Amino acid sequence: MEVRMKHLLNPLDLSVEETDRLLNLADSIAADPARYSHCCTGKKLATLFYEPSTRTRLSFEAAMINLGGSVLGFSSANSSSASKGESVSDTIRVISCYADICAMRHPKEGAPMVAAGKSRIPVINAGDGGHQHPTQTLTDLMTIRSLRGSLGNLTIGLCGDLKFGRTVHSLINSLIRYDNVKFVLISPKELRVPDYIRDDVLEANHVEYKEVEKLEDVMPELDILYMTRVQRERFFNEDEYLRMKNFYILDAEKMQLAKPDMYVLHPLPRVNEISVEVDDDPRAAYFKQVQNGVYVRMALILTLLGIDTSNL
Amino acid sequence: MEVRMKHLLNPLDLSVEETDRLLNLADSIAADPARYSHCCTGKKLATLFYEPSTRTRLSFEAAMINLGGSVLGFSSANSSSASKGESVSDTIRVISCYADICAMRHPKEGAPMVAAGKSRIPVINAGDGGHQHPTQTLTDLMTIRSLRGSLGNLTIGLCGDLKFGRTVHSLINSLIRYDNVKFVLISPKELRVPDYIRDDVLEANHVEYKEVEKLEDVMPELDILYMTRVQRERFFNEDEYLRMKNFYILDAEKMQLAKPDMYVLHPLPRVNEISVEVDDDPRAAYFKQVQNGVYVRMALILTLLGIDTSNL
Amino acid sequence: MEVRMKHLLNPLDLSVEETDRLLNLADSIAADPARYSHCCTGKKLATLFYEPSTRTRLSFEAAMINLGGSVLGFSSANSSSASKGESVSDTIRVISCYADICAMRHPKEGAPMVAAGKSRIPVINAGDGGHQHPTQTLTDLMTIRSLRGSLGNLTIGLCGDLKFGRTVHSLINSLIRYDNVKFVLISPKELRVPDYIRDDVLEANHVEYKEVEKLEDVMPELDILYMTRVQRERFFNEDEYLRMKNFYILDAEKMQLAKPDMYVLHPLPRVNEISVEVDDDPRAAYFKQVQNGVYVRMALILTLLGIDTSNL
Repeated sequence: MEVRMKHLLNPLDLSVEETDRLLNLADSIAADPARYSHCCTGKKLATLFYEPSTRTRLSFEAAMINLGGSVLGFSSANSSSASKGESVSDTIRVISCYADICAMRHPKEGAPMVAAGKSRIPVINAGDGGHQHPTQTLTDLMTIRSLRGSLGNLTIGLCGDLKFGRTVHSLINSLIRYDNVKFVLISPKELRVPDYIRDDVLEANHVEYKEVEKLEDVMPELDILYMTRVQRERFFNEDEYLRMKNFYILDAEKMQLAKPDMYVLHPLPRVNEISVEVDDDPRAAYFKQVQNGVYVRMALILTLLGIDTSNL
Repeated sequence: MEVRMKHLLNPLDLSVEETDRLLNLADSIAADPARYSHCCTGKKLATLFYEPSTRTRLSFEAAMINLGGSVLGFSSANSSSASKGESVSDTIRVISCYADICAMRHPKEGAPMVAAGKSRIPVINAGDGGHQHPTQTLTDLMTIRSLRGSLGNLTIGLCGDLKFGRTVHSLINSLIRYDNVKFVLISPKELRVPDYIRDDVLEANHVEYKEVEKLEDVMPELDILYMTRVQRERFFNEDEYLRMKNFYILDAEKMQLAKPDMYVLHPLPRVNEISVEVDDDPRAAYFKQVQNGVYVRMALILTLLGIDTSNL
Repeated sequence: MEVRMKHLLNPLDLSVEETDRLLNLADSIAADPARYSHCCTGKKLATLFYEPSTRTRLSFEAAMINLGGSVLGFSSANSSSASKGESVSDTIRVISCYADICAMRHPKEGAPMVAAGKSRIPVINAGDGGHQHPTQTLTDLMTIRSLRGSLGNLTIGLCGDLKFGRTVHSLINSLIRYDNVKFVLISPKELRVPDYIRDDVLEANHVEYKEVEKLEDVMPELDILYMTRVQRERFFNEDEYLRMKNFYILDAEKMQLAKPDMYVLHPLPRVNEISVEVDDDPRAAYFKQVQNGVYVRMALILTLLGIDTSNL
């Protein structure tokens, strides 16, 4: 009956069924966090952050502390043994002597996978370069599901830099596994989703999608709007940037075009792509998303450690 | 009956009555710290230090741990999301999902106030630029009160850089609220207290004070001597520095001029403004002050979290 | 009956008897760590790392957490008050108000000793420059003893940079106190043990030893092989380096020359001086050594805090 995974490296490591089970647990935790406050007593989480990511690191730490466990680790490479030339494989074997589970953030793609190969403890990929960031994806899924009741029958707008946006690619890959999900891809031409996403993921799976350049044009049809940042330096030239920059800034005016139950998500941090005036709109769900991130990580830690919560 | 504040941004946020209540609680804690060791079980303190301040950060951490709570956070801006351009307002909303209370240190004046405006958890200003450092002031007040029995009827010497010294200004502002406190302001001419302190605080409130240049001249009349550092680069010229530098160095010889119950305080770290030979003098209270800092922060955390300690 | 030391600055601070007692406790902990999981409830360890050393720091933190205690501290000097010019003596007096015991790593030899002189809490030297690193030595001793049953009657090969290798010198100094320990010193000529080790330690104590240049020549006679790194820049010239570099790289082929019960130790991190193919050899004990490091530190913390574990 138990989930038989040992590590979480890629959101797709989890089947739809395993994902559902994890999100169910996260929902139970959200409903009554105190009930889980002793589940990890005596357990230790190592946070191995080879590059800083305060939000993600603190979310993991809050999750483990909420479960009654403890945390140790490092928050940037220059305060780690990496600077002495140690391999990730050796580091994880050392950390296996110190902790019961670890979350690894690394600028190099695949580093957590290499670590998992040598680890005696579960490894959670907390972001590896432009590659994967599975706990962000699980957070997004939990948030969408809790707002709408399910992950199917959904028109989701993905807005901003869809070319380099790791979270967007993972979210597409995860959502196509559910029924009747339609994607509206909103971006400048030069920042459209990569060919392999369009051809190998969307087309190959006969998923309904369209690509547009302007957020305003599609607002009324969206159930979820997932905003991401568009960096100025990504544009081909300054003229293009000036012409289009407002297309990708969500403000109160654009929100008026949306359905009354169209929720806005964002992986954060934001810069100016969502105007602060939107924060007070009840449809703004990005801070709720942050809170869900803690619950999802609690559920994940419990699951990977094989802790039975059925008779709490 | 409870104190109805939510944040502590400025020492003057607390009325005299609230301050007294907080110091009473700090005294109770000092008398029997173990009694309070489970008051914050399951609670989390976030230490958001946008600039390093080890002493202050560790004092907060020790305080929370002493109460049975946990700590998470960051100790410098470059390991935080600030480097990704996130606003303090967004950061605090994220942190509100991770912790129950936070202590924020920031190089920019007013940052903790901005944070408090958007926070769902109590924010403690742990120092904002040259502006405020209220827990240092509360520590000073607790130390003076515990050494002398009360905060009134006191002649206090403030020595060193009185122009830029944030702790000195806060202490003056807090102490004028008590009866019969006389200030002896000991500094080079160019480092006297700013006009607004002299005119708007001391003169306007008819507080007795005098300004002198030489510590030796006033030692016998002091009940408390609050030392601070004078940085060489603050002097107008090298000649001035050489002429005066010894005026502001407290040594065993100068201590002989003082009353037998004149206590010496210092916010630390010191460089050479108190000679180490003074450390063994029973009147040296600066390390006691450090210990009190932990108790005051314990009391503050309990108060801001609204934890009832009346029936422990 | 109790061990009457207050600090651990040098491995030789512990008599042979005290070392035995400590290692016995470490063995008991290794046999059943959970039994000790509440011994330090309410106690705090300060990790004062004036230079980064993730492995050592996390080993101490894991040790304290395993005992039910808490940890606070800093992991590099630039996030500490040291950058404000505070002396180690003042810092330790401040830390004495925050924690019950501390582990100090410092780039300057003797800094932990200076701290111990002013400390109100036990100070553990977690490495001071090229000087001492007593908890590494205790880890080495525990590992050798647990693998072989005792610390006497042993032929130990020390291989690599024996001139600058702090851990090697400490290990020699500790092992000569046991009966019938023979040393085989394997290094390039320019990286042999310093004269004072050869003359004042080995010769003066009539300890049997030999110095050789090639690991292969002595493999069959060793009971323990303690590997360390040889840095390329330590060689006199590039030709020498090219001629000899393989002499000091342990691989599966060289392991075939060794006894079936010859164990390999290494203080880690390694770079390439032990080929990864050796990791799967049951005689590879360097990751076991890491685990023992946690147990030794748990035993040390208990001992220095004077916590009675006799009736657990």
